[in-house]
Amino acid sequence: MISLLIDGRPSHRLNPLDRGFQYGDGIFSTLPVEEGVPLFLDQHLDRLQRDALALGMPCPSRGDLMTDVSTLLKHHRRGILKLQLTRGVGGRGYRPPEHPAITRVVALHPAVTFPETYATQGVEVRYCHIRLGLNPALAGIKHMNRLEQVLARSEWDDPAIAEGLMLDYEGYLIEGTMTNVFLVSQGRIHTPQLDRCGVRGVMRALVLEAAGDLGWPLQESRLTPDSVAAAEEVFLTNSVIGLWPVRTLEGRQYTIGKATLEFREWLRNRTRSASQIASIAG
Amino acid sequence: MISLLIDGRPSHRLNPLDRGFQYGDGIFSTLPVEEGVPLFLDQHLDRLQRDALALGMPCPSRGDLMTDVSTLLKHHRRGILKLQLTRGVGGRGYRPPEHPAITRVVALHPAVTFPETYATQGVEVRYCHIRLGLNPALAGIKHMNRLEQVLARSEWDDPAIAEGLMLDYEGYLIEGTMTNVFLVSQGRIHTPQLDRCGVRGVMRALVLEAAGDLGWPLQESRLTPDSVAAAEEVFLTNSVIGLWPVRTLEGRQYTIGKATLEFREWLRNRTRSASQIASIAG
Repeated sequence: MISLLIDGRPSHRLNPLDRGFQYGDGIFSTLPVEEGVPLFLDQHLDRLQRDALALGMPCPSRGDLMTDVSTLLKHHRRGILKLQLTRGVGGRGYRPPEHPAITRVVALHPAVTFPETYATQGVEVRYCHIRLGLNPALAGIKHMNRLEQVLARSEWDDPAIAEGLMLDYEGYLIEGTMTNVFLVSQGRIHTPQLDRCGVRGVMRALVLEAAGDLGWPLQESRLTPDSVAAAEEVFLTNSVIGLWPVRTLEGRQYTIGKATLEFREWLRNRTRSASQIASIAG
Repeated sequence: MISLLIDGRPSHRLNPLDRGFQYGDGIFSTLPVEEGVPLFLDQHLDRLQRDALALGMPCPSRGDLMTDVSTLLKHHRRGILKLQLTRGVGGRGYRPPEHPAITRVVALHPAVTFPETYATQGVEVRYCHIRLGLNPALAGIKHMNRLEQVLARSEWDDPAIAEGLMLDYEGYLIEGTMTNVFLVSQGRIHTPQLDRCGVRGVMRALVLEAAGDLGWPLQESRLTPDSVAAAEEVFLTNSVIGLWPVRTLEGRQYTIGKATLEFREWLRNRTRSASQIASIAG
């Protein structure tokens, strides 16, 4: 059963005139709850604030969002939280209302369990055919216009394939349908530059932080499938899965090397300490 | 007051887990109702069917949609109909359900009244800064991922400006935020090729038909702001407004010439006869 709050009240009744439904005019963030602790909630609230600003939407107070989260976690110790903010109910027409009343939808979904081997032995990955359109004004934002990802994810139903990598319109590597991607090559970490499309994940930001901590030089740049083929290690991240090493990509095998192991360990420690701090604070 | 049917029943309560709200995973079509007649309903239903197919969604039966429309029109003679179809309620995750239960949302909004001069003397138009991303897989489809249009329409609030023209990522002219665009130049009609982005409007298809009828050569191609500056006449179309001549665009003045007048007349006649046929059939 999915617990849901709309504007702080338990409800499954959304006004269909909400601009989130009319135009996908909103943003979201997704994070796991483990042992009662919403992991990296602060970072997710920061991201919502940043994305709202980018779309010219006011952001509800942190207090309101944190109250929603506490309400949902009263009776649950595990699950996946999804926080959605939309530009509220508006008339017909694209023009945003001058003073939008933001809609807050916070849902607690059941925890997802991926095979343990995904994190330990790595995953099989493919390339998607559909490309990501380039739009600097929307790049980086986790907005509610996700048809490209829907079409990409519908390209395969082989359960052995855990994720699909997406290229942009010009053929550069950007991300997975639900993950960010990192390559390890000759002692450096490479990740796609997300200035023209793609989503800047919360876990991606943590990997950038980890690189500094661990002393790995990290570069954001335009990468191609050739860069991927030439890489020694490849790994994927998102808030729900943490880090998955890539084991196979379209026939090419990768080993789980030193870098992947170090980043996985760093993220695990960081997750553990974030969770302990949150427990103490809670 | 807006009358609304969800899956055929009067309701303002949409399940927030609907993929239309989660991902903008759906399509829509908008048309005016005049004297009890939904104008070009057949063409709009055709378009929904075509767009559903393009996104790999089943389309509800025409009968169901027509019943919804009749229900809403029982007590109203005028208004704007918006028909939305989404890939229904699904779990978390981009992957579409194997057998989606499509959600049908049909709404009757109040009629909009634009100044009469818009159609008779033309409108003032600007260029938008935000560009349209290129994605052939979504091009032409009136889908529910409309953030680009929302951001474009929020670029100006001068009520004297009736519409904003949008270029694609590479700088080619595509459309207005809510209209398709046509240029008249040296005896030919030009309209942007919509194979990489943009929406194929129902009224646009009628203009293509009109060109054949009226003997105007019409070309779909890559057009630039230079093509617009060099054109003798420019006009905009959509289902709700019909045809608006462009009077001013960023300082450049246009006259309402022979071509614009002929197309406007053709569309008016076609609308009148479509409306009469629908009245008799109804």
